Amino acid sequence: MRLKVYADRMSQPSRAVLSFCRLNGIDFEEIKVDISKRQQLSPEFKEINPMQKVPAILHGSFKLFESHAILVYLASAFPGIADHWYPTDLFRRAKINSVLDWHHSNLRHGAVTYVVNTVLAPAVGLRLNPKAAAEADKVLSSSLSKIEDFWLNEDGPFLLGGSQPSIADLSLVCEIMQLEVLDEKDRSRILTPYKKVVQWIEDTRTAMNPHFAEMHNILYKAKRKFQEQRSREAGARTESRPSKM
Amino acid sequence: MRLKVYADRMSQPSRAVLSFCRLNGIDFEEIKVDISKRQQLSPEFKEINPMQKVPAILHGSFKLFESHAILVYLASAFPGIADHWYPTDLFRRAKINSVLDWHHSNLRHGAVTYVVNTVLAPAVGLRLNPKAAAEADKVLSSSLSKIEDFWLNEDGPFLLGGSQPSIADLSLVCEIMQLEVLDEKDRSRILTPYKKVVQWIEDTRTAMNPHFAEMHNILYKAKRKFQEQRSREAGARTESRPSKM
Repeated sequence: MRLKVYADRMSQPSRAVLSFCRLNGIDFEEIKVDISKRQQLSPEFKEINPMQKVPAILHGSFKLFESHAILVYLASAFPGIADHWYPTDLFRRAKINSVLDWHHSNLRHGAVTYVVNTVLAPAVGLRLNPKAAAEADKVLSSSLSKIEDFWLNEDGPFLLGGSQPSIADLSLVCEIMQLEVLDEKDRSRILTPYKKVVQWIEDTRTAMNPHFAEMHNILYKAKRKFQEQRSREAGARTESRPSKM
Repeated sequence: MRLKVYADRMSQPSRAVLSFCRLNGIDFEEIKVDISKRQQLSPEFKEINPMQKVPAILHGSFKLFESHAILVYLASAFPGIADHWYPTDLFRRAKINSVLDWHHSNLRHGAVTYVVNTVLAPAVGLRLNPKAAAEADKVLSSSLSKIEDFWLNEDGPFLLGGSQPSIADLSLVCEIMQLEVLDEKDRSRILTPYKKVVQWIEDTRTAMNPHFAEMHNILYKAKRKFQEQRSREAGARTESRPSKM
């Protein structure tokens, strides 16, 4: 009963689940569900996840979706997972659950709404929505500020003062990494004010390598693609200007 | 080290946490943080929850916020909590976590955005936003449809086919109960298509009594207040019409 992970690496919770499996030597099969081709809406995938979203897992006959629930399940179901990922200590575990629950309506809501409405929407057949992006920008900045001032406000490089990463670090850093597809100036505007957040991303990257690079290659490629597109559009705008000569 | 629960019964996650304590005979002190008076923004409460939201708990020196994390903590920290609330079985627990995680961006997002933008906004100094309400209406209906067709699609009156309620039933039913403050016709329009959902609310109410009634009294009072307000406004509109006589 080899674990099957249904995922698209362009999806940040997919990257978190895949990374967790790689980091912990879990034997699994990665099954790509291509969001850009709307494969998550196929009848076959609906059998795996009736909510038609990635990631989802199939472990024997057991099906599960929602990335946090999956990470918690994997940390408990597979033997030998290091305790720092999801500590058995009641109090540390409760704090990690608190971060994960907070994530949904804050960092995740802000980041995904901002990125979709500034860059990704056309790729999935939607329109960019500048007003939604402006609102999401505020949620995103407020969330980063909360991480900076509260959850990174203890000794130790990871959330809640951890000396090693937990599933909360994994989930939240994979979320923030989607900002890679933004225009570099915009990404820098958003992240640079938060020095501890920037350092924490670096520390998580280091702790997760070589798997971090492998999982995020798709984002770096997308970044180059969107950057080239922006350059072409800027070029076209320049050429269409009336010449001063 | 008596448990302190910081809550406002007008907040649905507050009601879920308070109900859990009552249902399980946990000895606790309820400390009201009045949202209508913005007490959640006070420096004193920021010491308890830096995110300035209710509910939050203080158990000895241990502070925790986010209602799902609190419910999971209470189910584990207090002795003698019946297993059905948060089963120790790995697979059942994983499914309950999946429901709780799904809740954030679906039922909760839809219900709270709809109720705030059709009724509650003026009470907390905000404007009603009909466009946001229309979008939230779709998320809410889609969420109720998913509960009806998927999570209530097994034998047993509770989510995931449970014969007794879990913390997921508690959290989601407390969420839906906020629809009480809507105009009765509107509430009926939203809920009536979902027969299993309506029956599940009744079953949860029965399983939770007498605590369900106690916890939701504040909502029934608010319902009457908003209904009277709507009647007065309708009356004022009728009176201001030019007379046909």
